[in-house]
Amino acid sequence: MPETGPEAQESFVLRGDIAYSKDPETLVTYEDAYVVCVDGVSRGVFKTLPDDYRDLPVEDYSGRLILPGFSDLHVHAPQYQYRGNGMDLTLLDWLDQYAFPEEAKYSDLSYAERAYDLFVEDLYVGATTRACIFATIDPDATLGLMDMLEETGLITCVGKVNMDRNAPETYVETTEESLADTQAFLEAVAESGYLRTFPILTPRFTPSCTRELMDGLGRLAKEYGLPVQSHLSENKPEIAWVKELEPDAAFYGATYDRSGLFGENGKCIMAHCVHSVDEEVALINERGVFIAHCPECNLNISSGVAPVRRYLEEGLRVGLGSDVAGGSTTSLFAAMRYAIIASKVRAMFINENDRPLTFPEVFYLATKGGGAFFGRVGSFEEGYEFDAVVIDDEALPTMREEQTLTERVERLLYLADDRHVTGKYVAGRKLY
Amino acid sequence: MPETGPEAQESFVLRGDIAYSKDPETLVTYEDAYVVCVDGVSRGVFKTLPDDYRDLPVEDYSGRLILPGFSDLHVHAPQYQYRGNGMDLTLLDWLDQYAFPEEAKYSDLSYAERAYDLFVEDLYVGATTRACIFATIDPDATLGLMDMLEETGLITCVGKVNMDRNAPETYVETTEESLADTQAFLEAVAESGYLRTFPILTPRFTPSCTRELMDGLGRLAKEYGLPVQSHLSENKPEIAWVKELEPDAAFYGATYDRSGLFGENGKCIMAHCVHSVDEEVALINERGVFIAHCPECNLNISSGVAPVRRYLEEGLRVGLGSDVAGGSTTSLFAAMRYAIIASKVRAMFINENDRPLTFPEVFYLATKGGGAFFGRVGSFEEGYEFDAVVIDDEALPTMREEQTLTERVERLLYLADDRHVTGKYVAGRKLY
Repeated sequence: MPETGPEAQESFVLRGDIAYSKDPETLVTYEDAYVVCVDGVSRGVFKTLPDDYRDLPVEDYSGRLILPGFSDLHVHAPQYQYRGNGMDLTLLDWLDQYAFPEEAKYSDLSYAERAYDLFVEDLYVGATTRACIFATIDPDATLGLMDMLEETGLITCVGKVNMDRNAPETYVETTEESLADTQAFLEAVAESGYLRTFPILTPRFTPSCTRELMDGLGRLAKEYGLPVQSHLSENKPEIAWVKELEPDAAFYGATYDRSGLFGENGKCIMAHCVHSVDEEVALINERGVFIAHCPECNLNISSGVAPVRRYLEEGLRVGLGSDVAGGSTTSLFAAMRYAIIASKVRAMFINENDRPLTFPEVFYLATKGGGAFFGRVGSFEEGYEFDAVVIDDEALPTMREEQTLTERVERLLYLADDRHVTGKYVAGRKLY
Repeated sequence: MPETGPEAQESFVLRGDIAYSKDPETLVTYEDAYVVCVDGVSRGVFKTLPDDYRDLPVEDYSGRLILPGFSDLHVHAPQYQYRGNGMDLTLLDWLDQYAFPEEAKYSDLSYAERAYDLFVEDLYVGATTRACIFATIDPDATLGLMDMLEETGLITCVGKVNMDRNAPETYVETTEESLADTQAFLEAVAESGYLRTFPILTPRFTPSCTRELMDGLGRLAKEYGLPVQSHLSENKPEIAWVKELEPDAAFYGATYDRSGLFGENGKCIMAHCVHSVDEEVALINERGVFIAHCPECNLNISSGVAPVRRYLEEGLRVGLGSDVAGGSTTSLFAAMRYAIIASKVRAMFINENDRPLTFPEVFYLATKGGGAFFGRVGSFEEGYEFDAVVIDDEALPTMREEQTLTERVERLLYLADDRHVTGKYVAGRKLY
């Protein structure tokens, strides 16, 4: 599982306008302050630099914002090529018309290399420092993607996708192939010497994985202690289809759980959970499964709006997913904005007791909430791995001199893009 | 009323990948084609340049997209300064905490000049070629804004705002002041010699305008044949407040209509119409009132979702408004995206018979739908005033060689920003 790479031992101080989440309700802000990184780990934020750290080099970002890096808990690397297309479709048509045909192309390693290069460059220049990524069924192309990601300095979990049914002939595996390729993929990763790029088991979703495949993956999860990522209860026709395919499962999530793929053997992320029934929510809670909330995708392909207010109140582990290309952009600024909008939709039209998410709450989800999947990540509190992004908001001009640091952070959700990300640190290592 | 400026007599040909709306369902696309402008007016799009136009200069934008310019039917220039802030509030709190205090500052002409300069620059670099703009109650600051807009080459209608009640002491007029200042403002505009910047009467909304003020503005509308812009049926507490303030009016829209401010004396734009009752919709239709659909704002401040599907089916005149700063951005690419999302929300949660808006439909709204307010604007069909934007989508890389021109346009809604707008023409005049 993800651990700070051994080379990330840098110690330094950043100076600037600093903000981070203490808890979902509390955005802590310090104007013109110092955040200290020792051996890749935060020692906290200080208005005056303590004497202990006076000898450390100081990088002066005065006037700029310094925020924890963002963790994207759900993104499909190969789908990057058609981001922003097919948005008038719903999930199952969109898979057939866009996702499967595009993903099938990645068996051509030359295509895969050029295409993944565009995705990786995009992730590199944005505010994301960690991500959990779906690749395709092709193990070699997936290893190629991991090579590129390792090179960037980002910390990522990457999955070779498994799917042995209900997929087009040109993009499907036999059960045996799927398991053998996964095994080979895991062995190749083990030999790779990657410091910050980790494998994650990735059964696409129940409709495209037989019970036999799920069970085989469960054995691998147990043997290697691997994390798992998949999709869960995203939209109603999908859920009905799962019920039809797996009539013995009490609910959708049980189709993963009965194979040991629901957080029993390692960390687990389930994307969406828009329509999870109570038993499913209870099991998510019991197993400590992370929910990747993907609000843009859920709105774009008309799946619905996940009850994130409820999940937070019940203490579930929730982070954000850009879900490219169900989401159009890898930007978690956008994901935060859509999370707020989706929650307002929920409050207006689904359940008025589900108070809309506030901007501090979605900021928490993008940083500390999702970061928790990677360990102590997503905050500048003492002991957190040092992921930071430096944002130049002078390029978003305003005359408002009374603007607070909190307001400056809020407007980033609506206005910032990769142009404004001018510095990035991952686990204490400066990328740029 | 807006007319092509007399200096816009240019004749030329643009070559590139061309798209425009014929009707809401039909996006017409021509790869590697020519669009011809003669004396500021489109002569249509041609795969092969007709002999008649062989002598015209050709600007070669091969590989780039050429689209009709966008018309923003509703935007508040002074609110640009706090775009992206206060989004956790609802309408009436948001007005008190952000809108009124910020707008009050514009009585300081030096502040107004610097602040409006930021707004005007933003509008200039984006894909908008025409806009209907709210300024503040200050006539001199409003004239200053119009000077700047005139300079850009954009075609705009700009309103000095009227409000004589229910506003903070620091930002309110007496009825007499409001009418006298409007009269003086109109006279100053008449003397200005503006070619492309037009006055529009702008009662803020019924809660902030007495009947006496409305009647006075109605007399001005009639005397000068002026257009009108205001807000209508945006959110439920606002509508309840109007009912309380104006118990004799049968519905909200009647409070404008009884004063002659609802399309009887000149063109009229009403922003929002989220919760319009049937009689109101019927009157909007009868009077030919334009609806400025502002989906981002309606979601941001939890107002609801306007029934645009119904409006289109009933043949109402609908365009898009960015509604900065209820909307966070002046980009109509974003407004189109939010219009689609909002319509999906409506279909999911309000009325399943309201089929979601498709991307060709929202493209129509941003171009031909809103453009109709300005005359024959928003298309490349023969006889339309020649507004065009050139978009460089190579900066949005993809490996998809099979991508159609239609797909290239769709992805702009999700991915494009001002970086990608590389050329702009308004009524036949090249701005850049």
